[in-house]
Amino acid sequence: MSLAKKIISGDRRALARVLTLVENGDAHSKDILAELHPYGGKAHFVGVTGAPGVGKSSLVNFLAQSLRVLGDTVGVLAVDPSSPFGSGAILGDRVRMADLTGDDGIYIRSMASRGAVGGLAYATGAAADVLDAAGFNYVIIETVGVGQSGVEISNHVHTTIVLVASGAGDDVQAIKSGILETADILVVNKADLPGAEHVLADMRSNVVMNPSPAPSDHHAKSKQFDGSDLAWRVPLLSTVARSGDGVDLLIKSLLQHWEYLENSAEIDNRRRTRIRAILESLLRNRLYTRFMEDISRKQFDALLESIVLRDIDPYSAAARLIEEKYKASCLDKA
Amino acid sequence: MSLAKKIISGDRRALARVLTLVENGDAHSKDILAELHPYGGKAHFVGVTGAPGVGKSSLVNFLAQSLRVLGDTVGVLAVDPSSPFGSGAILGDRVRMADLTGDDGIYIRSMASRGAVGGLAYATGAAADVLDAAGFNYVIIETVGVGQSGVEISNHVHTTIVLVASGAGDDVQAIKSGILETADILVVNKADLPGAEHVLADMRSNVVMNPSPAPSDHHAKSKQFDGSDLAWRVPLLSTVARSGDGVDLLIKSLLQHWEYLENSAEIDNRRRTRIRAILESLLRNRLYTRFMEDISRKQFDALLESIVLRDIDPYSAAARLIEEKYKASCLDKA
Repeated sequence: MSLAKKIISGDRRALARVLTLVENGDAHSKDILAELHPYGGKAHFVGVTGAPGVGKSSLVNFLAQSLRVLGDTVGVLAVDPSSPFGSGAILGDRVRMADLTGDDGIYIRSMASRGAVGGLAYATGAAADVLDAAGFNYVIIETVGVGQSGVEISNHVHTTIVLVASGAGDDVQAIKSGILETADILVVNKADLPGAEHVLADMRSNVVMNPSPAPSDHHAKSKQFDGSDLAWRVPLLSTVARSGDGVDLLIKSLLQHWEYLENSAEIDNRRRTRIRAILESLLRNRLYTRFMEDISRKQFDALLESIVLRDIDPYSAAARLIEEKYKASCLDKA
Repeated sequence: MSLAKKIISGDRRALARVLTLVENGDAHSKDILAELHPYGGKAHFVGVTGAPGVGKSSLVNFLAQSLRVLGDTVGVLAVDPSSPFGSGAILGDRVRMADLTGDDGIYIRSMASRGAVGGLAYATGAAADVLDAAGFNYVIIETVGVGQSGVEISNHVHTTIVLVASGAGDDVQAIKSGILETADILVVNKADLPGAEHVLADMRSNVVMNPSPAPSDHHAKSKQFDGSDLAWRVPLLSTVARSGDGVDLLIKSLLQHWEYLENSAEIDNRRRTRIRAILESLLRNRLYTRFMEDISRKQFDALLESIVLRDIDPYSAAARLIEEKYKASCLDKA
């Protein structure tokens, strides 16, 4: 049986193996992903993002467990390189949690940020596709919400949950730089800490009442904040991830958002945005790999040296390299 | 006079304009960068990275001012999207600082993380080249050290300073995930806070005494920790960025690192690594742009739709698109 077939039949060891192949950018992984493609398209992809320390891992833990209790299966991808996942203690907690449930209904996987061929976003997207094809109802992607990764993740999921912590002043500041606009659901975590009311009020006035315009260039989400029936109002929730308080309301919002996506044309938009991002990554990587295969190491190194010596600038060098290669390849074929 | 010539002659308004063009990926910017290229290659590129909240901005402020007092000119690129740069208050401080000095010897620029064509790392590298050609002795790039950006920045600078804060337990955790290995200089900031001794001791035993092996795939830095003359021992410093304590020793280490780079073959390695990263970005973007120009919107959208409908998988679709296009373009020319 092929690895893809094994995954579809529920083989967890095959799943783990393929996720490793995907992460490493193994050449074989594309064939497996292609074979899995017809079985995907059913899962609800959920992104959980926010600055380091806001409690993403704890919240994802509770979210996964609660969804499981409701009868759903959940795959989790932890992409945050600063996530406690990477360290011993909390990884232990997660493994223990998975052990305790004693079933195959929860699958947790940490994505290494290094060495992911074609970029981490691409590898994560492909890994989510694998979990989708494996039959998980929910695929939760936990990613650190700073830098581009936090913004990019919204292109790879159906629902983006943005987490802000109360108590830490600079978290609010951090979060003000472009991530809030990607939120479908806004969560103020650590709501039991002093200052929670202040953060909630701040969010309510600055974000919910006067939403920043969604950046139209980054994703095709159309969010309206008016009262029309098929519009989505970004809910502002508060949770205490350590104890699980508020997770029930978060799940309610998650279900409502899925309902909204399915009842509007929005689900198609998001699926298209996601596929477009994957296709673009694939094309970029293939074009570059194909190009470099035809260029000798010697030729490339000589060019590098000329740039370092300032005999030629990189912009002219890149243009020249492409022109020469295109001409040569067509002459070969003609 | 061309914009490039104006920049070289010290025109700060031309500098600002070109940095905007670079950031926006304006087509014209490549020509300007090409014209500037022969004038570059002199500046010392310094990366300052670390988790949000460790005090990068304050430290960079002191560092820039102190270098200026020593007679050097300093350009600063703040890439951290969660940096206080983005918000009013501290941006005000920085502008005030620049105003106070009343000279053109310090130039500060915030890089927007969104919409940077070809990626933020590429735009930042190009912006650093512009500041280099403009004659700044130091170009300091401040970047958030989580996700890939923190790791990538070490490919774009000659010296990487990694900042860890004392007092915050999860900062140390965050920093353990791959950024420490990129450090040429390690700084424990907020050394006046309780717990500083603990963090320093932790760093000393875990990092300095038992250094993790440098990831050979990511950059060509060869770091040795033995006693040979041309080896670089990563120094462990402590600072209080709010007051400037320890910045003098940091500058001393910075000068020593430059001396080490120049006396070993390492400076050439790093220049080559940097140029290679720029050339790769350029090739990837040009190849993709060129490819997409020849593909009709209609053709692309139809393919997207087939993938969404699961008639074809993205991997086969990308391969097919490339094959068809290559064949067609050569037939045209033959």
